[in-house]
Amino acid sequence: RGNCDVCSGQCCDQPKNTNVRISLPAVCCIWQIAMIILFGIFIRYNEESDAHWIDHKTSNNISSNIENDFYFRYPSFQDVHVMIFVGFGFLMTFLKRYSFGAIGFNFLIAGFGLQWALLMQGWFHSLDPMDGKIKIGVESMINADFCVASCLIAYGAVLGKVSPVQLMVMTLFGVTLYAVEEYIILSLIHARDAGGSMVIHTFGAYYGLSISWMLYRPNLDQSKHRIGSVYHSDVFAMIGTLFLWMFWPSFNSAIADHGDGQHRAAINTYLSLAATVLTTIAISSLSQKTGKLDMVHIQNATLAGGVAVGTAAEFMLMPYGSLIVGFCCGIISTLGYIYITPFMEKYLKIHDTCGIHNLHAMPGVIGGIVGAITAAAASEEVYGKEGLINTFDFMKEWKYMVPTRQGGHQAAGLCVALCFGIGGGIIVGCILRLPIWGDAPDNSCFDDEVYWELPEDEENNPPTVEYNNHMRNKAV
Amino acid sequence: RGNCDVCSGQCCDQPKNTNVRISLPAVCCIWQIAMIILFGIFIRYNEESDAHWIDHKTSNNISSNIENDFYFRYPSFQDVHVMIFVGFGFLMTFLKRYSFGAIGFNFLIAGFGLQWALLMQGWFHSLDPMDGKIKIGVESMINADFCVASCLIAYGAVLGKVSPVQLMVMTLFGVTLYAVEEYIILSLIHARDAGGSMVIHTFGAYYGLSISWMLYRPNLDQSKHRIGSVYHSDVFAMIGTLFLWMFWPSFNSAIADHGDGQHRAAINTYLSLAATVLTTIAISSLSQKTGKLDMVHIQNATLAGGVAVGTAAEFMLMPYGSLIVGFCCGIISTLGYIYITPFMEKYLKIHDTCGIHNLHAMPGVIGGIVGAITAAAASEEVYGKEGLINTFDFMKEWKYMVPTRQGGHQAAGLCVALCFGIGGGIIVGCILRLPIWGDAPDNSCFDDEVYWELPEDEENNPPTVEYNNHMRNKAV
Amino acid sequence: RGNCDVCSGQCCDQPKNTNVRISLPAVCCIWQIAMIILFGIFIRYNEESDAHWIDHKTSNNISSNIENDFYFRYPSFQDVHVMIFVGFGFLMTFLKRYSFGAIGFNFLIAGFGLQWALLMQGWFHSLDPMDGKIKIGVESMINADFCVASCLIAYGAVLGKVSPVQLMVMTLFGVTLYAVEEYIILSLIHARDAGGSMVIHTFGAYYGLSISWMLYRPNLDQSKHRIGSVYHSDVFAMIGTLFLWMFWPSFNSAIADHGDGQHRAAINTYLSLAATVLTTIAISSLSQKTGKLDMVHIQNATLAGGVAVGTAAEFMLMPYGSLIVGFCCGIISTLGYIYITPFMEKYLKIHDTCGIHNLHAMPGVIGGIVGAITAAAASEEVYGKEGLINTFDFMKEWKYMVPTRQGGHQAAGLCVALCFGIGGGIIVGCILRLPIWGDAPDNSCFDDEVYWELPEDEENNPPTVEYNNHMRNKAV
Repeated sequence: RGNCDVCSGQCCDQPKNTNVRISLPAVCCIWQIAMIILFGIFIRYNEESDAHWIDHKTSNNISSNIENDFYFRYPSFQDVHVMIFVGFGFLMTFLKRYSFGAIGFNFLIAGFGLQWALLMQGWFHSLDPMDGKIKIGVESMINADFCVASCLIAYGAVLGKVSPVQLMVMTLFGVTLYAVEEYIILSLIHARDAGGSMVIHTFGAYYGLSISWMLYRPNLDQSKHRIGSVYHSDVFAMIGTLFLWMFWPSFNSAIADHGDGQHRAAINTYLSLAATVLTTIAISSLSQKTGKLDMVHIQNATLAGGVAVGTAAEFMLMPYGSLIVGFCCGIISTLGYIYITPFMEKYLKIHDTCGIHNLHAMPGVIGGIVGAITAAAASEEVYGKEGLINTFDFMKEWKYMVPTRQGGHQAAGLCVALCFGIGGGIIVGCILRLPIWGDAPDNSCFDDEVYWELPEDEENNPPTVEYNNHMRNKAV
Repeated sequence: RGNCDVCSGQCCDQPKNTNVRISLPAVCCIWQIAMIILFGIFIRYNEESDAHWIDHKTSNNISSNIENDFYFRYPSFQDVHVMIFVGFGFLMTFLKRYSFGAIGFNFLIAGFGLQWALLMQGWFHSLDPMDGKIKIGVESMINADFCVASCLIAYGAVLGKVSPVQLMVMTLFGVTLYAVEEYIILSLIHARDAGGSMVIHTFGAYYGLSISWMLYRPNLDQSKHRIGSVYHSDVFAMIGTLFLWMFWPSFNSAIADHGDGQHRAAINTYLSLAATVLTTIAISSLSQKTGKLDMVHIQNATLAGGVAVGTAAEFMLMPYGSLIVGFCCGIISTLGYIYITPFMEKYLKIHDTCGIHNLHAMPGVIGGIVGAITAAAASEEVYGKEGLINTFDFMKEWKYMVPTRQGGHQAAGLCVALCFGIGGGIIVGCILRLPIWGDAPDNSCFDDEVYWELPEDEENNPPTVEYNNHMRNKAV
Repeated sequence: RGNCDVCSGQCCDQPKNTNVRISLPAVCCIWQIAMIILFGIFIRYNEESDAHWIDHKTSNNISSNIENDFYFRYPSFQDVHVMIFVGFGFLMTFLKRYSFGAIGFNFLIAGFGLQWALLMQGWFHSLDPMDGKIKIGVESMINADFCVASCLIAYGAVLGKVSPVQLMVMTLFGVTLYAVEEYIILSLIHARDAGGSMVIHTFGAYYGLSISWMLYRPNLDQSKHRIGSVYHSDVFAMIGTLFLWMFWPSFNSAIADHGDGQHRAAINTYLSLAATVLTTIAISSLSQKTGKLDMVHIQNATLAGGVAVGTAAEFMLMPYGSLIVGFCCGIISTLGYIYITPFMEKYLKIHDTCGIHNLHAMPGVIGGIVGAITAAAASEEVYGKEGLINTFDFMKEWKYMVPTRQGGHQAAGLCVALCFGIGGGIIVGCILRLPIWGDAPDNSCFDDEVYWELPEDEENNPPTVEYNNHMRNKAV
């Protein structure tokens, strides 16, 4: 009857050990010490955050402090930061008894991931050839947050089914793969991807789905009764949804070009997301016999438009183009929740707790395709001569690049993201199958009880008769 | 006896059909497609978000990308955006069983409204005479959010009593009326209203109250037991309150003049709101026999100072002037909740779920009056010659305007806002009375059950007969 | 057995009167009127928020509106504002029945405190010698919020044990002491403290702890059963934690120097906080027999890194230096929750509801020491000649200052903060012991019932036996 308290210990074939008292502290401490050492060796302030800025300013004829990159990007950085910690964290609180795990492990992944990302991305992107140091500034922090986002997306697929130690391992490899993949896509292939439809969402989603596939739990229906939400947990999840939704324009514009690039990226994302809300609600209502709306769709599918407009946000997608992208993604993503997620679980043996396939994987791929088409269709007429060069960065070794070929490079970038996501996920999934990570048995998934000291509250341990008598006596 | 599960179907005279499975998806999809077409025809990027910005910069001698309007207004825009979606959304979650509707329909209204607002406001304000296109940028996005705010205020009056389809209709007309009214007030009459005391709050509140009056439900007490809050829902509502309160300085300064205008508007709002908190708490405590505070007041009346300082925020209201405005509004608004709301419901047949009359209508009118007085009292001594011209925009066809006459124009603007609010609300209310919109019967108001798939949680459906008996027996 | 409703009136020796119906409104109204009068006499806009800005710009050769300080600091101000109201407010909602008091009284303290802070800080720091007026701008608002932060920290120690009137008194004196202490530390001693490790955190924490010591309640275990959290209240508290955590880089950089100063402060804080997350989780897991995590640690100790890096954030602490600070503080703060808080309560008779000793006091002192060391170790090689002068403000009367001596001044600043905190707290604690403030008896602490009208909700008046049987039967 799904009543797990009775049968636990009997029906579970593998008695798993979820005690992480040694492994979790060890991983956290050792890796953190490693970070300190590596930061000591490699990481320094860049010229805009170093105390020599005042000299740099003079020697580069910069007239005012306001032209420090900090003032171009810091507000967007803070918005992105909110998306990472509150957005992703609260979006995953929808499960009735896994809110601590959702927020807490999200916090852990992000806290570790951003440090490792600064190093990995630094080695590939901002290694100063003069002194062999990585120079960081506000843009590095945004990029580190972006990198972490891909790992948090992956976490969405395995939410409630893995241990914090597994999550640390997943993040370590995820960030590493991300940095390589990003280097190939952005630097070698010279694809543009300001909002990360390919680099972040496609990669992150397929990475997570592949891991979930490798970690498939055949007896997960023993924890089925804990997969749903309760009224309040759905409201908590809306905090995550809304902060993601609202700040997505900052996400897509955070590392776009100064000036019109950031401006346009914000507008496009704003519009795309607005359209997604309407079609999500339309399809959600249509899918129920009595036209009732489903919170799962509102919480997730409304965000698909932001994902899908990521690559093309800084291009001249045009306002109506953004609306069309948002329109389609709201429909596709909601239909995904209705049809594809159950299909994947049943036939492909991929259990996707948060439905990241609908929210990140499909819209990410769509975003890559939209980006390729928009790039291929770019013309001097629309962008202006200078504008075209600036937007697509047709400079230095790429100065003979043309838009149509750029479209091909964009498509190539999408393929790389897919390969890294799927390939990397399978390999990391194998590693995570080792029986040493302290993950929960199939009948204790989606339960904070396993890794958290829980408060003894009314809802939790259904009061015994004596307790009730006490309570009743003092009632008011 | 208020137990609606037993008598539903018996005591309801009009068996209403709340199935919106056809109407809601139809409205969402068709209107969204209309948006796409209209955006395709009319809307383009403005020169600061277009890829030609680089040429524009050169030809206008703009020295740096940082002078793109994006950097002046984007942080404020994001704050306003949070107010619209999290602020208004969560403020309305206070009802014990209407949190999904509060957040979800708020999301729907805003998602649709901002698109329609871009078009309507564009036609009136930013139609490029050269090519007949509307040029949008960050200021357009802020204005669209502002416009949506007026519809969300109106939603506050009818919260829990209307269907999502009705809300879409209400938004369609609300945005239209807003754009016309705003054009008359700001462009024709040349009133100033940076924070929208008149244009947004007065209009929105009277629009909503008139609709609520037209939709008066004589048997609403059948849903009375669902009008209250529970402990957690009050905490959720405080999320909304606080984000509105904190970001109100950004709201009032978002479209003020660059430089001192934005700076001053933020300071005035900050101070006014601080004073409101103290008088709200004072009156709330005074109103209860034992001096206990009422969450309803804290959640709402603390915001009245921000509304009332909207028009005058960019003027030289002086710091103490802001405090006085906040002081008075905290008192008036709290007294409104204690005396006026029950009065209006009983004698005027206006049921105002969120008390928008106290939070937006009265403070909005006060704000209009304060604005008129402050404008009329403006002098070159206080503002400086240039400052006066800049602050009140005494340029072009208005260059012979004087402060005293400006005061008159401000007052005229307030009247226009009132007329549009009340008149428009009555007309739209008539339309919404048609029995085709799928609204809930009187005994199912304030209940998410009607339009949402609810999780089966403990709090939700234990209600077996025995449980209900107990609840009734022990109900304090 | 902790059942307080039965014995109340019997076991409490002093039957306390918690009716604040006269005192609270009186204090709020009178003090607010005093604020209006004082603002009328003293406070004016500064030249960047005054309508004469346009003249000021011309006469000072300022080329663009974007160089108004508003655009350098307003985004950070809003982040700090969120920390004050949502961050501190929600962090304290963890108690199962004191969420209203946590958020509501936080709101009250901050609303009053920021006004008084503008005056007090103005008299000491920004009194214009020409006309005897205080000139305020965006930096004044940030400083006022900072000042309020110290009072909110102090509130954390006495949360649930004092009346709102006591809190107002505590804030009045707290702000006053803060302004004096800040003036001594920053202006007379010329210590640097951008993020306020000493000025805000050390002072605020010891101020609160001393008050809590003076107000020690020997029979507080009568309210022991209300000190814990429930599942949802812990999630609410995480909202506070995360907004504090995310925006801490803005806090530490808000009033740092334009350009590299703000940029560097943000980076250092970002890194320090990331490291703290990992060590907090490590120690939390290590401290439990089965390696489970404790929400109290995650909610609080993860923030210690931000406190401890406050003073040194704008210095060339280096990225690895920030990580080391964060690493240590996560460990110390978590150990503090495990060992020191119970010790202090048992042996020192200091009850510290939120554990501010671990979150603010110890990390604040560490921050002061780190700042002193970093300052003493500063060299022209690392900072550059101009950079050194700028960062440490070695100008005017301090132009012959050298880094090593600056280190000594930093240490002196820390001592002043400690003295003011402890001394001031003891004096104010004496005042608060007067039996006129309407505080709750020992058996009604941590209960919103005392000062708030509570909704009659299901969770509140708990389940009966029959209901439980039902629940257990259907528990699936």
